[in-house]
Amino acid sequence: MRFSLTSPTSTDGVTEQSFTLGEITGVLFTPEGATGPRPLILMGHGGGQHKKAPGVLAGAQRFAAEGGFAVAAVDAPNHGDRPKSERFIQYAGGMRTRIAAGEDPAELVAGMHDLLAGQAVAEWQAVVTAVQELDHVGAGPVGYWGVSMGCGLGMPLLAAEPRIRAAVLGLLGVHGLAETAAQVTVPVRFLVQWDDTRVPREQALALFDALGSTEKTLHANPGDHGGIPAFETGDALRFFARHLA
Amino acid sequence: MRFSLTSPTSTDGVTEQSFTLGEITGVLFTPEGATGPRPLILMGHGGGQHKKAPGVLAGAQRFAAEGGFAVAAVDAPNHGDRPKSERFIQYAGGMRTRIAAGEDPAELVAGMHDLLAGQAVAEWQAVVTAVQELDHVGAGPVGYWGVSMGCGLGMPLLAAEPRIRAAVLGLLGVHGLAETAAQVTVPVRFLVQWDDTRVPREQALALFDALGSTEKTLHANPGDHGGIPAFETGDALRFFARHLA
Repeated sequence: MRFSLTSPTSTDGVTEQSFTLGEITGVLFTPEGATGPRPLILMGHGGGQHKKAPGVLAGAQRFAAEGGFAVAAVDAPNHGDRPKSERFIQYAGGMRTRIAAGEDPAELVAGMHDLLAGQAVAEWQAVVTAVQELDHVGAGPVGYWGVSMGCGLGMPLLAAEPRIRAAVLGLLGVHGLAETAAQVTVPVRFLVQWDDTRVPREQALALFDALGSTEKTLHANPGDHGGIPAFETGDALRFFARHLA
Repeated sequence: MRFSLTSPTSTDGVTEQSFTLGEITGVLFTPEGATGPRPLILMGHGGGQHKKAPGVLAGAQRFAAEGGFAVAAVDAPNHGDRPKSERFIQYAGGMRTRIAAGEDPAELVAGMHDLLAGQAVAEWQAVVTAVQELDHVGAGPVGYWGVSMGCGLGMPLLAAEPRIRAAVLGLLGVHGLAETAAQVTVPVRFLVQWDDTRVPREQALALFDALGSTEKTLHANPGDHGGIPAFETGDALRFFARHLA
Protein backbone atom coordinates (compact mmCIF):
# COMPACT_ATOMS: atom_id res chain seq x y z
CA MET A 1 0.00 0.00 0.00
CA ARG A 2 1.19 3.49 -0.83
CA PHE A 3 2.07 5.58 2.27
CA SER A 4 1.87 9.34 1.80
CA LEU A 5 2.50 12.01 4.48
CA THR A 6 1.71 15.76 4.30
CA SER A 7 4.19 18.42 5.40
CA PRO A 8 4.35 18.88 9.17
CA THR A 9 2.59 21.72 11.01
CA SER A 10 3.29 22.39 14.69
CA THR A 11 1.15 23.80 17.51
CA ASP A 12 1.90 23.89 21.26
CA GLY A 13 4.96 21.68 20.95
CA VAL A 14 3.24 18.97 18.89
CA THR A 15 3.83 18.30 15.20
CA GLU A 16 0.91 16.98 13.15
CA GLN A 17 1.08 15.23 9.77
CA SER A 18 -1.94 13.88 7.90
CA PHE A 19 -1.31 10.65 6.04
CA THR A 20 -2.93 8.15 3.73
CA LEU A 21 -2.00 4.49 3.58
CA GLY A 22 -3.88 2.99 0.65
CA GLU A 23 -7.51 3.90 1.44
CA ILE A 24 -6.80 4.65 5.12
CA THR A 25 -6.91 8.30 6.18
CA GLY A 26 -4.94 9.12 9.31
CA VAL A 27 -2.95 11.64 11.28
CA LEU A 28 0.39 11.32 13.07
CA PHE A 29 1.32 13.42 16.11
CA THR A 30 4.93 13.66 17.34
CA PRO A 31 6.74 15.99 19.74
CA GLU A 32 7.99 19.06 17.88
CA GLY A 33 11.55 18.51 16.68
CA ALA A 34 11.44 14.77 17.47
CA THR A 35 14.27 12.62 16.10
CA GLY A 36 14.90 8.93 16.68
CA PRO A 37 12.67 6.08 17.88
CA ARG A 38 9.98 6.45 20.53
CA PRO A 39 6.91 4.53 21.78
CA LEU A 40 3.85 4.72 19.50
CA ILE A 41 0.27 5.04 20.74
CA LEU A 42 -2.62 4.14 18.44
CA MET A 43 -5.85 6.01 19.16
CA GLY A 44 -9.19 4.55 18.01
CA HIS A 45 -12.18 6.93 17.98
CA GLY A 46 -15.79 6.21 18.99
CA GLY A 47 -18.71 5.30 16.71
CA GLY A 48 -19.78 8.17 14.44
CA GLN A 49 -16.60 10.10 15.32
CA HIS A 50 -13.34 10.47 13.38
CA LYS A 51 -9.54 10.62 13.70
CA LYS A 52 -9.57 14.20 15.05
CA ALA A 53 -12.56 13.97 17.41
CA PRO A 54 -12.06 16.09 20.57
CA GLY A 55 -11.43 13.08 22.85
CA VAL A 56 -8.74 11.78 20.48
CA LEU A 57 -7.07 15.18 20.06
CA ALA A 58 -7.00 15.85 23.82
CA GLY A 59 -5.14 12.59 24.43
CA ALA A 60 -2.86 12.85 21.39
CA GLN A 61 -1.73 16.35 22.37
CA ARG A 62 -0.74 15.31 25.92
CA PHE A 63 0.73 11.93 24.96
CA ALA A 64 3.03 13.64 22.42
CA ALA A 65 3.84 16.86 24.32
CA GLU A 66 4.21 15.46 27.86
CA GLY A 67 5.06 11.80 27.18
CA GLY A 68 7.25 12.26 24.12
CA PHE A 69 5.24 9.55 22.33
CA ALA A 70 4.30 9.31 18.68
CA VAL A 71 0.50 9.03 18.29
CA ALA A 72 -1.33 7.68 15.24
CA ALA A 73 -5.09 8.12 14.79
CA VAL A 74 -7.02 6.85 11.76
CA ASP A 75 -10.58 7.08 10.52
CA ALA A 76 -12.18 3.69 11.16
CA PRO A 77 -13.81 2.06 8.11
CA ASN A 78 -17.02 4.00 7.19
CA HIS A 79 -15.97 6.96 9.35
CA GLY A 80 -14.47 10.44 8.93
CA ASP A 81 -13.14 11.11 5.44
CA ARG A 82 -13.95 7.58 4.23
CA PRO A 83 -16.95 6.37 2.19
CA LYS A 84 -19.85 4.63 3.96
CA SER A 85 -21.19 1.24 2.84
CA GLU A 86 -24.94 0.50 2.57
CA ARG A 87 -24.61 -2.20 5.23
CA PHE A 88 -22.97 0.26 7.65
CA ILE A 89 -25.71 2.84 7.02
CA GLN A 90 -28.30 0.15 7.84
CA TYR A 91 -26.61 -0.63 11.18
CA ALA A 92 -26.24 3.05 12.09
CA GLY A 93 -29.92 3.69 11.34
CA GLY A 94 -31.00 0.65 13.36
CA MET A 95 -28.93 1.78 16.34
CA ARG A 96 -30.35 5.30 16.27
CA THR A 97 -33.87 3.86 16.16
CA ARG A 98 -33.23 1.57 19.14
CA ILE A 99 -31.57 4.30 21.21
CA ALA A 100 -34.44 6.74 20.43
CA ALA A 101 -36.91 4.06 21.55
CA GLY A 102 -35.05 3.64 24.84
CA GLU A 103 -34.03 0.07 23.95
CA ASP A 104 -30.63 -1.51 24.65
CA PRO A 105 -28.62 -1.27 21.40
CA ALA A 106 -25.93 -3.76 22.56
CA GLU A 107 -26.79 -6.40 19.95
CA LEU A 108 -26.60 -3.98 17.00
CA VAL A 109 -23.49 -2.28 18.43
CA ALA A 110 -21.76 -5.67 18.61
CA GLY A 111 -22.95 -6.51 15.09
CA MET A 112 -21.52 -3.27 13.71
CA HIS A 113 -18.20 -3.87 15.47
CA ASP A 114 -18.13 -7.39 13.98
CA LEU A 115 -18.76 -5.87 10.54
CA LEU A 116 -15.81 -3.47 10.88
CA ALA A 117 -13.35 -5.46 13.01
CA GLY A 118 -11.65 -7.61 10.38
CA GLN A 119 -10.81 -4.63 8.18
CA ALA A 120 -9.95 -2.35 11.11
CA VAL A 121 -7.49 -4.83 12.62
CA ALA A 122 -5.66 -5.35 9.31
CA GLU A 123 -5.54 -1.59 8.77
CA TRP A 124 -4.06 -0.86 12.22
CA GLN A 125 -1.43 -3.53 11.64
CA ALA A 126 -0.46 -1.91 8.32
CA VAL A 127 -0.39 1.54 9.95
CA VAL A 128 2.00 0.35 12.69
CA THR A 129 4.34 -1.12 10.07
CA ALA A 130 4.24 2.03 7.93
CA VAL A 131 4.68 4.71 10.60
CA GLN A 132 7.39 2.74 12.43
CA GLU A 133 9.54 3.10 9.31
CA LEU A 134 9.65 6.87 9.84
CA ASP A 135 12.86 8.10 11.49
CA HIS A 136 11.04 10.06 14.21
CA VAL A 137 8.78 7.10 15.17
CA GLY A 138 10.96 4.00 14.78
CA ALA A 139 10.35 0.48 16.08
CA GLY A 140 9.56 1.21 19.74
CA PRO A 141 6.88 -0.42 21.90
CA VAL A 142 3.23 0.20 20.93
CA GLY A 143 0.18 1.08 23.04
CA TYR A 144 -3.51 1.32 22.13
CA TRP A 145 -6.12 3.79 23.41
CA GLY A 146 -9.79 3.41 22.46
CA VAL A 147 -13.16 3.58 24.22
CA SER A 148 -16.70 2.74 23.07
CA MET A 149 -16.28 1.65 19.39
CA GLY A 150 -12.55 2.23 19.88
CA CYS A 151 -12.73 -0.53 22.50
CA GLY A 152 -14.89 -2.78 20.32
CA LEU A 153 -12.36 -2.61 17.49
CA GLY A 154 -9.36 -2.52 19.86
CA MET A 155 -10.13 -5.83 21.59
CA PRO A 156 -9.71 -7.94 18.42
CA LEU A 157 -6.62 -5.87 17.52
CA LEU A 158 -5.05 -6.62 20.93
CA ALA A 159 -5.94 -10.30 20.59
CA ALA A 160 -4.24 -10.43 17.16
CA GLU A 161 -1.25 -8.07 17.38
CA PRO A 162 1.71 -8.91 19.65
CA ARG A 163 3.46 -5.56 19.01
CA ILE A 164 0.90 -3.84 21.29
CA ARG A 165 2.09 -3.97 24.92
CA ALA A 166 -0.55 -2.00 26.89
CA ALA A 167 -4.03 -0.58 26.31
CA VAL A 168 -6.58 1.86 27.66
CA LEU A 169 -10.09 0.59 26.83
CA GLY A 170 -13.65 0.94 28.13
CA LEU A 171 -17.16 2.40 27.69
CA LEU A 172 -18.42 -0.87 26.25
CA GLY A 173 -20.31 -3.96 27.44
CA VAL A 174 -19.42 -7.63 27.15
CA HIS A 175 -21.98 -8.43 24.42
CA GLY A 176 -20.24 -10.46 21.70
CA LEU A 177 -16.75 -9.78 23.11
CA ALA A 178 -16.18 -12.27 25.97
CA GLU A 179 -14.15 -14.72 23.87
CA THR A 180 -11.98 -12.00 22.33
CA ALA A 181 -11.43 -10.27 25.69
CA ALA A 182 -10.17 -13.53 27.18
CA GLN A 183 -7.38 -13.54 24.57
CA VAL A 184 -6.10 -10.12 25.66
CA THR A 185 -3.10 -10.55 27.98
CA VAL A 186 -1.35 -7.14 28.07
CA PRO A 187 -1.86 -4.66 30.94
CA VAL A 188 -5.19 -2.86 30.51
CA ARG A 189 -6.70 0.28 32.01
CA PHE A 190 -10.50 -0.09 31.62
CA LEU A 191 -12.68 3.05 31.88
CA VAL A 192 -16.30 2.83 33.04
CA GLN A 193 -18.77 5.69 33.32
CA TRP A 194 -20.86 4.84 36.39
CA ASP A 195 -24.07 6.40 35.03
CA ASP A 196 -23.60 5.41 31.36
CA THR A 197 -27.05 5.43 29.71
CA ARG A 198 -25.74 3.54 26.65
CA VAL A 199 -23.79 0.76 28.39
CA PRO A 200 -25.46 -0.99 31.35
CA ARG A 201 -23.07 -1.01 34.32
CA GLU A 202 -23.24 -4.78 34.76
CA GLN A 203 -22.33 -5.31 31.08
CA ALA A 204 -19.28 -3.04 31.40
CA LEU A 205 -18.11 -4.76 34.61
CA ALA A 206 -18.54 -8.12 32.87
CA LEU A 207 -16.26 -7.03 29.99
CA PHE A 208 -13.58 -5.98 32.52
CA ASP A 209 -14.07 -9.35 34.20
CA ALA A 210 -13.65 -11.19 30.88
CA LEU A 211 -10.24 -9.66 30.08
CA GLY A 212 -7.48 -12.27 30.19
CA SER A 213 -4.85 -9.79 31.43
CA THR A 214 -3.12 -10.40 34.76
CA GLU A 215 -2.68 -6.65 35.24
CA LYS A 216 -5.96 -4.85 34.61
CA THR A 217 -7.39 -1.88 36.49
CA LEU A 218 -10.95 -0.61 36.24
CA HIS A 219 -11.40 3.14 36.66
CA ALA A 220 -15.03 4.14 37.21
CA ASN A 221 -16.21 7.76 37.39
CA PRO A 222 -19.67 9.28 37.81
CA GLY A 223 -21.41 10.57 34.69
CA ASP A 224 -22.74 9.47 31.31
CA HIS A 225 -21.06 7.89 28.26
CA GLY A 226 -19.26 11.01 27.04
CA GLY A 227 -18.20 12.34 30.44
CA ILE A 228 -14.79 10.80 31.15
CA PRO A 229 -13.05 13.32 33.45
CA ALA A 230 -9.99 15.10 32.03
CA PHE A 231 -7.72 13.73 34.78
CA GLU A 232 -8.09 10.23 33.25
CA THR A 233 -5.99 11.49 30.31
CA GLY A 234 -3.14 12.24 32.73
CA ASP A 235 -3.63 8.83 34.35
CA ALA A 236 -3.52 7.17 30.90
CA LEU A 237 -0.30 9.04 30.08
CA ARG A 238 1.38 7.71 33.22
CA PHE A 239 0.03 4.20 32.54
CA PHE A 240 1.57 4.23 29.05
CA ALA A 241 4.80 5.76 30.38
CA ARG A 242 5.06 2.93 32.93
CA HIS A 243 4.51 0.18 30.35
CA LEU A 244 6.09 1.55 27.18
CA ALA A 245 9.08 3.56 28.46
CA MET B 1 -3.84 16.87 75.91
CA ARG B 2 -0.08 16.70 76.25
CA PHE B 3 1.75 16.44 72.89
CA SER B 4 5.20 14.87 73.03
CA LEU B 5 7.53 14.18 70.09
CA THR B 6 10.70 12.04 70.04
CA SER B 7 13.93 13.18 68.37
CA PRO B 8 13.91 12.81 64.61
CA THR B 9 15.62 9.94 62.77
CA SER B 10 15.99 9.99 58.99
CA THR B 11 16.12 7.22 56.37
CA ASP B 12 15.99 7.52 52.57
CA GLY B 13 15.12 11.20 52.64
CA VAL B 14 12.27 10.85 55.15
CA THR B 15 12.37 12.00 58.77
CA GLU B 16 10.37 10.00 61.32
CA GLN B 17 9.27 11.14 64.79
CA SER B 18 7.16 9.06 67.14
CA PHE B 19 4.67 11.03 69.19
CA THR B 20 2.08 10.72 71.92
CA LEU B 21 -0.93 12.99 72.26
CA GLY B 22 -2.62 12.10 75.54
CA GLU B 23 -3.23 8.35 75.18
CA ILE B 24 -2.77 8.37 71.38
CA THR B 25 0.41 6.78 70.03
CA GLY B 26 1.48 8.00 66.60
CA VAL B 27 4.25 8.67 64.16
CA LEU B 28 4.96 11.68 61.96
CA PHE B 29 6.83 11.47 58.65
CA THR B 30 8.21 14.56 56.91
CA PRO B 31 10.70 15.12 54.08
CA GLU B 32 14.25 15.28 55.49
CA GLY B 33 15.21 18.86 56.23
CA ALA B 34 11.62 20.14 55.81
CA THR B 35 10.88 23.67 56.96
CA GLY B 36 7.63 25.62 56.63
CA PRO B 37 4.03 24.55 55.98
CA ARG B 38 3.02 21.68 53.71
CA PRO B 39 -0.05 19.48 53.06
CA LEU B 40 -0.68 16.80 55.71
CA ILE B 41 -1.88 13.28 54.96
CA LEU B 42 -3.47 11.17 57.71
CA MET B 43 -3.03 7.41 57.27
CA GLY B 44 -5.45 5.02 58.98
CA HIS B 45 -4.36 1.37 59.22
CA GLY B 46 -6.46 -1.79 58.78
CA GLY B 47 -8.09 -3.90 61.51
CA GLY B 48 -5.54 -5.78 63.64
CA GLN B 49 -2.72 -3.66 62.18
CA HIS B 50 -0.91 -0.63 63.61
CA LYS B 51 0.60 2.77 62.75
CA LYS B 52 3.68 1.26 61.12
CA ALA B 53 2.06 -1.62 59.22
CA PRO B 54 3.77 -2.28 55.84
CA GLY B 55 0.91 -0.75 53.78
CA VAL B 56 1.04 2.44 55.85
CA LEU B 57 4.84 2.71 55.74
CA ALA B 58 4.98 2.17 51.96
CA GLY B 59 2.57 5.07 51.40
CA ALA B 60 4.06 7.35 54.06
CA GLN B 61 7.57 6.97 52.62
CA ARG B 62 6.49 7.93 49.09
CA PHE B 63 4.05 10.67 50.13
CA ALA B 64 6.82 12.37 52.17
CA ALA B 65 9.83 11.70 49.91
CA GLU B 66 8.20 12.25 46.49
CA GLY B 67 5.25 14.49 47.34
CA GLY B 68 6.89 16.61 50.04
CA PHE B 69 3.89 15.96 52.31
CA ALA B 70 3.80 15.53 56.07
CA VAL B 71 2.20 12.19 56.99
CA ALA B 72 0.69 11.30 60.37
CA ALA B 73 -0.22 7.72 61.31
CA VAL B 74 -1.69 6.72 64.66
CA ASP B 75 -2.64 3.48 66.35
CA ALA B 76 -6.42 3.23 66.24
CA PRO B 77 -8.13 2.64 69.61
CA ASN B 78 -7.41 -0.96 70.78
CA HIS B 79 -4.58 -1.35 68.25
CA GLY B 80 -0.78 -1.25 68.16
CA ASP B 81 0.80 0.05 71.38
CA ARG B 82 -2.58 0.78 72.98
CA PRO B 83 -4.54 -1.32 75.52
CA LYS B 84 -7.45 -3.52 74.31
CA SER B 85 -10.90 -3.34 75.90
CA GLU B 86 -12.93 -6.48 76.74
CA ARG B 87 -15.66 -5.40 74.30
CA PHE B 88 -13.09 -5.05 71.48
CA ILE B 89 -11.65 -8.50 72.25
CA GLN B 90 -15.20 -9.92 72.03
CA TYR B 91 -15.73 -8.38 68.57
CA ALA B 92 -12.33 -9.53 67.29
CA GLY B 93 -13.00 -13.10 68.48
CA GLY B 94 -16.45 -13.11 66.89
CA MET B 95 -15.05 -11.92 63.58
CA ARG B 96 -12.33 -14.58 63.54
CA THR B 97 -14.96 -17.24 64.25
CA ARG B 98 -17.22 -16.06 61.43
CA ILE B 99 -14.38 -15.79 58.91
CA ALA B 100 -13.11 -19.26 59.85
CA ALA B 101 -16.64 -20.64 59.34
CA GLY B 102 -16.75 -19.05 55.86
CA GLU B 103 -19.54 -16.67 56.93
CA ASP B 104 -19.83 -13.00 55.91
CA PRO B 105 -18.42 -10.94 58.82
CA ALA B 106 -19.89 -7.63 57.52
CA GLU B 107 -22.28 -7.16 60.46
CA LEU B 108 -19.58 -7.64 63.11
CA VAL B 109 -17.07 -5.56 61.13
CA ALA B 110 -19.58 -2.70 61.01
CA GLY B 111 -20.32 -3.15 64.74
CA MET B 112 -16.63 -2.94 65.61
CA HIS B 113 -16.18 0.18 63.50
CA ASP B 114 -19.20 1.73 65.26
CA LEU B 115 -17.57 0.89 68.59
CA LEU B 116 -14.32 2.65 67.66
CA ALA B 117 -15.52 5.48 65.39
CA GLY B 118 -16.54 8.11 67.94
CA GLN B 119 -13.19 7.94 69.73
CA ALA B 120 -11.16 7.58 66.51
CA VAL B 121 -12.74 10.66 64.90
CA ALA B 122 -12.10 12.84 67.96
CA GLU B 123 -8.52 11.57 68.15
CA TRP B 124 -7.78 12.33 64.46
CA GLN B 125 -9.17 15.83 64.92
CA ALA B 126 -6.90 16.41 67.92
CA VAL B 127 -3.90 15.01 66.00
CA VAL B 128 -4.48 17.41 63.08
CA THR B 129 -4.62 20.36 65.46
CA ALA B 130 -1.47 19.27 67.33
CA VAL B 131 0.79 18.40 64.38
CA GLN B 132 -0.25 21.47 62.38
CA GLU B 133 1.28 23.60 65.15
CA LEU B 134 4.71 22.22 64.26
CA ASP B 135 6.81 24.55 62.09
CA HIS B 136 7.58 21.86 59.49
CA VAL B 137 3.90 20.82 59.11
CA GLY B 138 1.90 24.06 59.45
CA ALA B 139 -1.74 24.73 58.58
CA GLY B 140 -1.83 23.35 55.00
CA PRO B 141 -4.63 21.34 53.40
CA VAL B 142 -5.27 17.83 54.79
CA GLY B 143 -5.87 14.48 53.06
CA TYR B 144 -6.87 11.08 54.43
CA TRP B 145 -5.74 7.62 53.31
CA GLY B 146 -7.30 4.47 54.79
CA VAL B 147 -8.61 1.15 53.50
CA SER B 148 -10.56 -1.68 55.19
CA MET B 149 -10.92 -0.54 58.85
CA GLY B 150 -9.06 2.63 57.81
CA CYS B 151 -12.02 3.28 55.50
CA GLY B 152 -14.60 2.34 58.14
CA LEU B 153 -13.14 4.89 60.58
CA GLY B 154 -12.25 7.37 57.82
CA MET B 155 -15.82 7.77 56.50
CA PRO B 156 -17.19 9.26 59.77
CA LEU B 157 -14.03 11.40 60.05
CA LEU B 158 -14.60 12.81 56.54
CA ALA B 159 -18.26 13.42 57.32
CA ALA B 160 -17.30 15.36 60.48
CA GLU B 161 -14.06 17.18 59.64
CA PRO B 162 -14.04 20.03 57.08
CA ARG B 163 -10.23 20.41 57.18
CA ILE B 164 -9.89 17.19 55.12
CA ARG B 165 -10.07 17.99 51.40
CA ALA B 166 -9.47 14.63 49.63
CA ALA B 167 -9.38 10.94 50.56
CA VAL B 168 -8.24 7.53 49.36
CA LEU B 169 -10.59 4.87 50.75
CA GLY B 170 -11.74 1.34 49.93
CA LEU B 171 -11.65 -2.40 50.72
CA LEU B 172 -14.93 -2.19 52.61
CA GLY B 173 -18.63 -2.84 51.97
CA VAL B 174 -21.64 -0.60 52.46
CA HIS B 175 -22.98 -2.40 55.57
CA GLY B 176 -23.84 0.23 58.20
CA LEU B 177 -22.10 3.04 56.27
CA ALA B 178 -24.55 4.26 53.58
CA GLU B 179 -25.78 7.25 55.58
CA THR B 180 -22.27 8.36 56.57
CA ALA B 181 -20.93 7.89 53.04
CA ALA B 182 -23.66 10.16 51.67
CA GLN B 183 -22.30 12.97 53.88
CA VAL B 184 -18.82 12.74 52.32
CA THR B 185 -18.42 15.44 49.67
CA VAL B 186 -14.65 15.74 49.05
CA PRO B 187 -12.94 14.06 46.05
CA VAL B 188 -12.46 10.34 46.77
CA ARG B 189 -10.32 7.63 45.20
CA PHE B 190 -12.01 4.32 46.16
CA LEU B 191 -9.96 1.08 45.92
CA VAL B 192 -11.67 -2.28 45.28
CA GLN B 193 -9.98 -5.67 45.08
CA TRP B 194 -11.95 -7.53 42.41
CA ASP B 195 -11.50 -10.96 44.06
CA ASP B 196 -11.75 -9.82 47.70
CA THR B 197 -12.77 -12.84 49.80
CA ARG B 198 -13.63 -10.64 52.81
CA VAL B 199 -15.70 -7.94 51.07
CA PRO B 200 -18.34 -9.08 48.54
CA ARG B 201 -17.87 -7.14 45.28
CA GLU B 202 -21.46 -5.90 45.22
CA GLN B 203 -21.11 -4.52 48.76
CA ALA B 204 -17.93 -2.61 47.84
CA LEU B 205 -19.51 -1.18 44.66
CA ALA B 206 -22.54 -0.13 46.73
CA LEU B 207 -20.31 1.81 49.17
CA PHE B 208 -18.70 3.64 46.22
CA ASP B 209 -22.20 4.33 44.93
CA ALA B 210 -23.29 5.72 48.30
CA LEU B 211 -20.51 8.34 48.49
CA GLY B 212 -21.93 11.87 48.24
CA SER B 213 -18.83 13.21 46.45
CA THR B 214 -19.22 14.74 42.98
CA GLU B 215 -15.67 13.67 42.11
CA LYS B 216 -15.12 10.03 43.01
CA THR B 217 -13.16 7.41 41.08
CA LEU B 218 -13.28 3.68 41.71
CA HIS B 219 -10.04 1.78 41.02
CA ALA B 220 -10.55 -1.99 40.87
CA ASN B 221 -7.68 -4.46 40.52
CA PRO B 222 -7.61 -8.27 40.44
CA GLY B 223 -6.65 -10.08 43.64
CA ASP B 224 -7.68 -10.56 47.27
CA HIS B 225 -8.11 -8.13 50.20
CA GLY B 226 -4.41 -7.56 50.87
CA GLY B 227 -3.27 -7.41 47.26
CA ILE B 228 -3.52 -3.74 46.23
CA PRO B 229 -0.86 -3.31 43.50
CA ALA B 230 2.08 -1.06 44.33
CA PHE B 231 1.30 1.30 41.43
CA GLU B 232 -1.84 2.43 43.28
CA THR B 233 0.48 4.15 45.80
CA GLY B 234 1.89 6.27 42.96
CA ASP B 235 -1.64 6.97 41.73
CA ALA B 236 -2.68 8.02 45.26
CA LEU B 237 0.34 10.34 45.47
CA ARG B 238 -0.67 12.11 42.25
CA PHE B 239 -4.31 12.27 43.42
CA PHE B 240 -3.24 14.00 46.66
CA ALA B 241 -0.83 16.27 44.78
CA ARG B 242 -3.68 17.34 42.48
CA HIS B 243 -6.08 18.14 45.33
CA LEU B 244 -3.80 19.35 48.12
CA ALA B 245 -1.02 21.20 46.32
